[in-house]
Amino acid sequence: MRLIHGKHEAFTVFKERYSGSDDANAGELVREILTAVRERGDEAVREFSERFDGVRLSDFRVPARAFDEAVENVGSDLQEAIGLAARRIASYYRSQPAQGFIEEQDGTLLGQLVRPLELVGCYVPGGTAPLFSTLLMTAIPARVAGVEEIVVATPPDRFGEVAPEILVAAREVGVTDVYRVGGAQAIAALAYGTQSIPRVDKVVGPGNRWVVLAKQAVYGVVGIESLPGPTETLVLADESASLGHVVADLLAQAEHMGAQPVLVTTSRDLAEALPAALEAALADLPTAATARESISTRGLRVLVETLAEGIEVSNRFAPEHLCLLVDKPHDLVPLVRNAGGIFVGHHSMEALGDYLAGPSHVMPTGGTARFSSFVNVSDFQKLIPIVGVGEELLGQVGPAAARMARAEGLEAHARAIESRIGSAGK
Amino acid sequence: MRLIHGKHEAFTVFKERYSGSDDANAGELVREILTAVRERGDEAVREFSERFDGVRLSDFRVPARAFDEAVENVGSDLQEAIGLAARRIASYYRSQPAQGFIEEQDGTLLGQLVRPLELVGCYVPGGTAPLFSTLLMTAIPARVAGVEEIVVATPPDRFGEVAPEILVAAREVGVTDVYRVGGAQAIAALAYGTQSIPRVDKVVGPGNRWVVLAKQAVYGVVGIESLPGPTETLVLADESASLGHVVADLLAQAEHMGAQPVLVTTSRDLAEALPAALEAALADLPTAATARESISTRGLRVLVETLAEGIEVSNRFAPEHLCLLVDKPHDLVPLVRNAGGIFVGHHSMEALGDYLAGPSHVMPTGGTARFSSFVNVSDFQKLIPIVGVGEELLGQVGPAAARMARAEGLEAHARAIESRIGSAGK
Repeated sequence: MRLIHGKHEAFTVFKERYSGSDDANAGELVREILTAVRERGDEAVREFSERFDGVRLSDFRVPARAFDEAVENVGSDLQEAIGLAARRIASYYRSQPAQGFIEEQDGTLLGQLVRPLELVGCYVPGGTAPLFSTLLMTAIPARVAGVEEIVVATPPDRFGEVAPEILVAAREVGVTDVYRVGGAQAIAALAYGTQSIPRVDKVVGPGNRWVVLAKQAVYGVVGIESLPGPTETLVLADESASLGHVVADLLAQAEHMGAQPVLVTTSRDLAEALPAALEAALADLPTAATARESISTRGLRVLVETLAEGIEVSNRFAPEHLCLLVDKPHDLVPLVRNAGGIFVGHHSMEALGDYLAGPSHVMPTGGTARFSSFVNVSDFQKLIPIVGVGEELLGQVGPAAARMARAEGLEAHARAIESRIGSAGK
Repeated sequence: MRLIHGKHEAFTVFKERYSGSDDANAGELVREILTAVRERGDEAVREFSERFDGVRLSDFRVPARAFDEAVENVGSDLQEAIGLAARRIASYYRSQPAQGFIEEQDGTLLGQLVRPLELVGCYVPGGTAPLFSTLLMTAIPARVAGVEEIVVATPPDRFGEVAPEILVAAREVGVTDVYRVGGAQAIAALAYGTQSIPRVDKVVGPGNRWVVLAKQAVYGVVGIESLPGPTETLVLADESASLGHVVADLLAQAEHMGAQPVLVTTSRDLAEALPAALEAALADLPTAATARESISTRGLRVLVETLAEGIEVSNRFAPEHLCLLVDKPHDLVPLVRNAGGIFVGHHSMEALGDYLAGPSHVMPTGGTARFSSFVNVSDFQKLIPIVGVGEELLGQVGPAAARMARAEGLEAHARAIESRIGSAGK
């Protein structure tokens, strides 16, 4: 696990993070998939599902009886856990401040409306296991925002089935339209619509690089929330942090495919003890192979002089998850500028946040926390400004507006304004 | 100007609107420009500026003395109008509700921080005239959001200069870094940074199709607010609307290059009288050539039975601008679901909104109002969730979270949670 000394070396290492990749081949294939699905609909989706998921499907929509069967096949403990998570997530999002306002002055009215999106598609990655928590973490904020229609797309397993846990989670949030389609072909189908899959207004959710490339390519035809890719955690720890906690949190990160675990610490002891402690904990971990690859390929330890320097390093890295395993974590929160989410203190491990602390676990990755946010209610709402100009205001500011219009060479703008000034009624 | 009868015919005509274009050649050229700028920086920017703007520049940054000269070259009336517009826009955005919150219960703390972006790039289109109002309409919401560093990119004229009005507007909002670079090369330079142009966190502002394609392609390396393209206005008018107002508002739209003016009306008289009235008004309009092209190529008249049907048509079209020239406009506002902005009533022409009503004139076009919003304060802020889990909550919900983690095959997540349950202090 690479050891870095101080912020300047760290900044150099982080530089690559913002340069953007130029994976022309992947881009080419994704464009091919998108074009095929747009032009040939279901037939193309069927071909790509066979090619990439190894399963030939006659229909994509998961039938209603599969939801009933799922309830039989998921333990009641887990079903209760899913219910608890759903309630906690909804409660968090209900606290997000409303965005509408309206103001009137002298007959002029200015404000903004808030309108939920009409139809949202949530992508739930398959990968090694059914990530049903992602369904909760995208569909619930959409529901709180007022979205009425939500559909889900998720890759089929090799038998063409969707895991029962995903169907239980779907039912928990009132989703009945689940399509067993994954990858770029799923994103294309949701963006363009096919004979059997509806065109949505926005596609949300994380995915592998095909999903990310496809989301980027369809943006504009459809909305997307961001481009969440491989996950990452930056643990900022001081001398008060327990080595066991640091190891536990970094492993909980590392066991995701392609993850990047980072420790930034003021404690040389902690930095030096970490590799052996990780190795010991890996011994009996079922996901050790993936975790070991994450640690050895992308793991970083950064030794800093002060916690302030540590926060500087973190702000530059702009981690998806920032975990503050320090003595006085609340002192550091005001210094954070770029992070997908902040987990404050020794008991506030990110792993809990993945399931039911409240906020969505879909957070910006790869340095995009510089400019984007975790999935939240505003991702599922439009703000629409309202302008109701009264005669009095028109008289006051109309001439200035007309002057600006003429300076921009837009004579018809100026005339549209001037024709109303002083005209009574209509 | 094409005449459409009723919503069903209208819906069919609008279908194309959401299909997405497949302009492979343009896409190819844009990717070429992006790669060249990323790899060769200023040198590539210089070449493309020469190729597309016909001017060879030694440096891109507009020098400080040009701002002083601009003040000499812009009339004091227009300078005052710019100041008035700036104050009104800032005042509107200060009314947008704040987004932060924090809640504590039994030692557990949940909330979200609001953080402004650090460095924003505003793109100001050149085209036929200096669109200095766009600078106000993007930079001011950014300022209100708390963005400290703002830079502007705008195409040079054929002498390599930037119009003084743009520099006056820049100074009004405290922007001193103006780069005379336009098109895809400007977007690339802002996204990747070059030797002389800083890499920004987000690029905002409208542009031609090269700009739009480039913004889409760099999204992920950098944030973008949306993909505003050619402008459009849908006027919804009943029998109470004055033909003169309808003509004025549609022409104010049509005089933009590539614009789409649409009238939806319950009045057969109005629909039938419109073409001749437009023709008459075009007679002495300096921008008549552009306006005529917009009207004949993309102009639409839609005749509907009721205003409710008219709103249905508008919601499906999802216009950038919706102008309600009806007797009781406020009755219709609650029915609006998709629109970039709503202009309410006979005195509330969109042309005023373009300059100084308050809300930004950068609004979603091309049907993207289905899922995106006008430029607003939240475009320049990140929401960062804060999770501070207390011991009590951990004991209550930790086991459920661990159960969910194991069901997802994420053993290290479960262990990270369980290792803390019941552990005292740290």
